[in-house]
Amino acid sequence: MTGTKEFLWPVRVYYEDTDAGGVVYYANYLRFMERARTEWLRQLGFEQDELLQREGILFAVRRVAVEFRRPARFNDRLSVRSRIRQRRRASLVFQQEIVRDVDRQLLCDGDVQVACIDAAGFRPRPIPDALLEALPDGF
Amino acid sequence: MTGTKEFLWPVRVYYEDTDAGGVVYYANYLRFMERARTEWLRQLGFEQDELLQREGILFAVRRVAVEFRRPARFNDRLSVRSRIRQRRRASLVFQQEIVRDVDRQLLCDGDVQVACIDAAGFRPRPIPDALLEALPDGF
Amino acid sequence: MTGTKEFLWPVRVYYEDTDAGGVVYYANYLRFMERARTEWLRQLGFEQDELLQREGILFAVRRVAVEFRRPARFNDRLSVRSRIRQRRRASLVFQQEIVRDVDRQLLCDGDVQVACIDAAGFRPRPIPDALLEALPDGF
Amino acid sequence: MTGTKEFLWPVRVYYEDTDAGGVVYYANYLRFMERARTEWLRQLGFEQDELLQREGILFAVRRVAVEFRRPARFNDRLSVRSRIRQRRRASLVFQQEIVRDVDRQLLCDGDVQVACIDAAGFRPRPIPDALLEALPDGF
Repeated sequence: MTGTKEFLWPVRVYYEDTDAGGVVYYANYLRFMERARTEWLRQLGFEQDELLQREGILFAVRRVAVEFRRPARFNDRLSVRSRIRQRRRASLVFQQEIVRDVDRQLLCDGDVQVACIDAAGFRPRPIPDALLEALPDGF
Repeated sequence: MTGTKEFLWPVRVYYEDTDAGGVVYYANYLRFMERARTEWLRQLGFEQDELLQREGILFAVRRVAVEFRRPARFNDRLSVRSRIRQRRRASLVFQQEIVRDVDRQLLCDGDVQVACIDAAGFRPRPIPDALLEALPDGF
Repeated sequence: MTGTKEFLWPVRVYYEDTDAGGVVYYANYLRFMERARTEWLRQLGFEQDELLQREGILFAVRRVAVEFRRPARFNDRLSVRSRIRQRRRASLVFQQEIVRDVDRQLLCDGDVQVACIDAAGFRPRPIPDALLEALPDGF
Repeated sequence: MTGTKEFLWPVRVYYEDTDAGGVVYYANYLRFMERARTEWLRQLGFEQDELLQREGILFAVRRVAVEFRRPARFNDRLSVRSRIRQRRRASLVFQQEIVRDVDRQLLCDGDVQVACIDAAGFRPRPIPDALLEALPDGF
């Protein structure tokens, strides 16, 4: 186990992320959360394009349960805080929070379950051992 | 109570909806679900731009819990089936399912809680009576 | 030559299409234009997923030159009007306009060049004869 | 004139940016270009949310002419290189290029004209002098 318990990733809100309500379009928080998961894997030494080419696997989101508490606005600087809630043989559950930097307000949070699947048939595949070992143990 | 229990809305998958996995990017199913909610309100006689201008309210997603079961692909024709799971004073819970037309496979489903808020302060506001009455009673 | 000179496709503006300026995010007009091109091909009998599977080709946008004249807003109903400006061996130039239905105002217009390429190597490939013949001659 | 002639901004390609062709969806390059323009203004000391609140202005894209030369793929690291091609009283023309870091290949490039408008009526407004003076002179 080499990873830290928690991974922080910064996100800036651009016009493309907002909607006519003047705030971030809610489905886009899920994009921010995915960027954070991708960067965490990268920091641990795992590039998803290489995992696909060498092992024929990719990670697909299987389930999300997210609460949207306060809106982020154009130009806000946010932080995505990610932890592993659960490690299984073929899936991971991430607990993720998005916080606005300027006032430390929690904007949204939730759990995202990600499954390891084979890219050809979209069937479950074991997560590579090296990756499982690199990830922290959970809470 | 004038509405039907269930509302069906068709969606075609375009390139813009897919990702490099060859399938619909998971956060985009939430867009499809929102289109269906918008069209349901429209069919019941409620235009959200008029609700905003006349009553100063808008609907914001407060919580989603969605399971992604099977992938949709480019060019698929989908149907979004929506029902009301819960009607409260200032929020609604929709139960929504996305089905692929050609084989009737369930691709994803879940609950989406939508809150009625004032557009200026983003605080909860009662759902207009006329709208509550137009919506079906639930399951 | 079996196609009509012009193809019309309706688009409804949802929250997902807008930004915090209160209007459609400009890059999203390009999505609307692509939906119209896809539906035109479909109406002529060409499904792009079949073209990919049977002939190994896909269409990629090579060049856009678009002017954004007036903003569309949430809930607007738009029409995309498409014509062929140029037919070449391995590419097509579409001239496309987006008009707001309620007042017939021209919102944006421009040219989009689409190249036929092989899906494996992204190199130019001749447009299938049957497709070229089905398309109208141009202006 | 305090700015440098050229501004570089890095972009990482995530799944959200790609489509089923396996490459970045072409309209998303326009998002990358906008992020770069936003960050350039920020580096010069101009925050667009403050410009909106204090001066009631925002910048809207009026015209794009972009050529897509080679595809970017998931996980690619890109650089957006931006210059001012033209400074007018109420608009700017940016010349922007997107290059893939690993092999310095030019992926796409073009001109983007941005107009300064009042947020209420969407009519042209002079660009604030301080901003015009901070921008470089052009090529």
